[in-house]
Amino acid sequence: MGGYGWVSFTTDYGEVDGFVAACKGVIATIAPAARVIDVTHQVPPQDVRRGSRVLAQTAPWLPSAVHVAVVDPGVGTERRGVCVVAGPSVLIGPDNGLLVPAAEALGGLTAAYELTDPAYQLPVVTTTFHGRDVFAPAAAHVCNGVAPAALGPAIEVGSLVRLPTPTVAATPGDLRAEVLAVDGFGNVQLAAAGADLATAFGPAGPAPTRLLVHAGERSWPASRGTTFGDVGPGELVVYVDSVDRVAVAVNGGAAAPRLGAAEGTTVRITRA
Amino acid sequence: MGGYGWVSFTTDYGEVDGFVAACKGVIATIAPAARVIDVTHQVPPQDVRRGSRVLAQTAPWLPSAVHVAVVDPGVGTERRGVCVVAGPSVLIGPDNGLLVPAAEALGGLTAAYELTDPAYQLPVVTTTFHGRDVFAPAAAHVCNGVAPAALGPAIEVGSLVRLPTPTVAATPGDLRAEVLAVDGFGNVQLAAAGADLATAFGPAGPAPTRLLVHAGERSWPASRGTTFGDVGPGELVVYVDSVDRVAVAVNGGAAAPRLGAAEGTTVRITRA
Amino acid sequence: MGGYGWVSFTTDYGEVDGFVAACKGVIATIAPAARVIDVTHQVPPQDVRRGSRVLAQTAPWLPSAVHVAVVDPGVGTERRGVCVVAGPSVLIGPDNGLLVPAAEALGGLTAAYELTDPAYQLPVVTTTFHGRDVFAPAAAHVCNGVAPAALGPAIEVGSLVRLPTPTVAATPGDLRAEVLAVDGFGNVQLAAAGADLATAFGPAGPAPTRLLVHAGERSWPASRGTTFGDVGPGELVVYVDSVDRVAVAVNGGAAAPRLGAAEGTTVRITRA
Repeated sequence: MGGYGWVSFTTDYGEVDGFVAACKGVIATIAPAARVIDVTHQVPPQDVRRGSRVLAQTAPWLPSAVHVAVVDPGVGTERRGVCVVAGPSVLIGPDNGLLVPAAEALGGLTAAYELTDPAYQLPVVTTTFHGRDVFAPAAAHVCNGVAPAALGPAIEVGSLVRLPTPTVAATPGDLRAEVLAVDGFGNVQLAAAGADLATAFGPAGPAPTRLLVHAGERSWPASRGTTFGDVGPGELVVYVDSVDRVAVAVNGGAAAPRLGAAEGTTVRITRA
Repeated sequence: MGGYGWVSFTTDYGEVDGFVAACKGVIATIAPAARVIDVTHQVPPQDVRRGSRVLAQTAPWLPSAVHVAVVDPGVGTERRGVCVVAGPSVLIGPDNGLLVPAAEALGGLTAAYELTDPAYQLPVVTTTFHGRDVFAPAAAHVCNGVAPAALGPAIEVGSLVRLPTPTVAATPGDLRAEVLAVDGFGNVQLAAAGADLATAFGPAGPAPTRLLVHAGERSWPASRGTTFGDVGPGELVVYVDSVDRVAVAVNGGAAAPRLGAAEGTTVRITRA
Repeated sequence: MGGYGWVSFTTDYGEVDGFVAACKGVIATIAPAARVIDVTHQVPPQDVRRGSRVLAQTAPWLPSAVHVAVVDPGVGTERRGVCVVAGPSVLIGPDNGLLVPAAEALGGLTAAYELTDPAYQLPVVTTTFHGRDVFAPAAAHVCNGVAPAALGPAIEVGSLVRLPTPTVAATPGDLRAEVLAVDGFGNVQLAAAGADLATAFGPAGPAPTRLLVHAGERSWPASRGTTFGDVGPGELVVYVDSVDRVAVAVNGGAAAPRLGAAEGTTVRITRA
């Protein structure tokens, strides 16, 4: 392997402080030719689940890269820092479930190494900023051609921490699924895939299907569609989104506050 | 034309999700040498007018580039995706008025093409994410030297959707203008140009002109000046801003909440 | 000196408007090979103190660079624009105290020049946007190899505006210090250094030290530790942070709202 030209970077650091820049500075110092694509730094603080999902849904569209992700409530404790090899890419971050969904989306985990070799860390490793002191330097060295296996001992892929899989149940006429994410437009993305929608309501046809969306104690009429403009302004549409997840949106509005839906709540869809 | 080294990128995607990164990943994969300057990704959701203004006021300061802008409430409907040639640059995005003011600021629209050739789109084009599937790949191919005319059929420049022009009325002693934008400091930018201020109150002189700023039902005393520090802390100043628009600011504070002014409201300025 | 390949960029411009992009466009036009690392653009409006601190804590981790910082309530007044040489780097921005702490963190101020030569400014310099018209072009020219001394007349380093030094008092058993910053996680960073904590409570030992944190009229029990996970969820930990400052955090939570602590308030720590 000849190294990498691209690093992707996902954190809960926010952009008010200089944490992201400090990490980029470390990368620039060690691997000046590497270029960084920011996935997001606005993962809610310590929300490993949310971080894992945004990375998993974005990484497949990035070039082969070293994907660095840091949402790390256990920094400085016994939790391991790891480098995971997946398809043509490499992921680096804490072993708390953050990296696994992206690794699966990139083709599956083929190897993992614990980040223990101090040669690939900063000379002083603080207890609270492994993004800067451990993960960024490891990524930069891998960009420079250091093999992941050089970073530390191999660990069983099966021993990596994994997050619970969100629930989905699709039967004819009935789809129940956990909310995977709410995006900045207020669109409600469910854990169900496009195939689950077809299981529940058949293949998408030219005529709209009238549906009911149930959340909490209430229900709302909705139409099956392919995009926001398939329904009138302010109306609900159920569609398959750009990463093959079933989603609920309001044309020209925000579905999440209307449904009272948030990450982890369950939404049910039935025929009207 | 030998292609472009720079892409500018303006959206309402926000930076919480991975949408911006997915688009950048597509560009990086197709045109690895292209470099991206983010204009903003915090256009309020689906606010085409605001997006058009921030791009028009920024693009003249950027190097020749492929300017990609996506504020696209009609994504997946019949609205066209377009490539507009303007001066030495190219603009790519939805045909909903978003691109036209920037194209005019860059020297005027000389040609336009509809984005129809699938050779310059991703293999699968989803209905809700044309930023990633249509606009980013088109931009990347143009960076690589593909001619805008290759992207699809030429369309009449006059057929492009245009947004209403904001109102301005300047007569001696009286200036009325729509609020063009409120920036992050709370400065209130009017649609009026520096020349309109001169029409109303004469050329700027060494002595301050006492003015009244009227908004809603109220009026506030203000001074004509050239920068914030020309008035005392907390006082209003009327000045010509960095893109030749008349603006109202509070020294050390925010004018917009004080005036109750927002994009689209009208402000009137008279002599005190 | 052969110029610089990196620019760091710190402002209070926010990322809603196109101000940051306009500056980057000016840099890209003059010095296309220069690469920009954003420190933050979310310094609270006109908060020079906050801007100075985030830059000072980040710059040591960046490669040698031209550090541009603009938090500039006095733009267009008599305040000077300056270029400061510090260690192997250069800092450019207003002479209002913003640059000095970073310059000291980079090895100390060795020279300073006032930005007066119009050859290194844009042809039209507006009164309200020196970031774009004065500081960005100066930085780009320095990247291209222009000597800082060419930008304008040398000025006494001692004449540069400096901000007050935050107060720290450490005696055995008692540490009082001003809050230097509150980060996005709500961690409360004090002006005290790790050595001050040792002065007050001795060297860090294997057994936890029980402490009391006093802020306003109230006190809270806390433990001395090295990272968040050293205390139970929701408990307070006093530790030395990643830039050698004493800090107070809540494991899995935010310390600042609990303590009612904000930049500039004073926190006192004693033994329990």
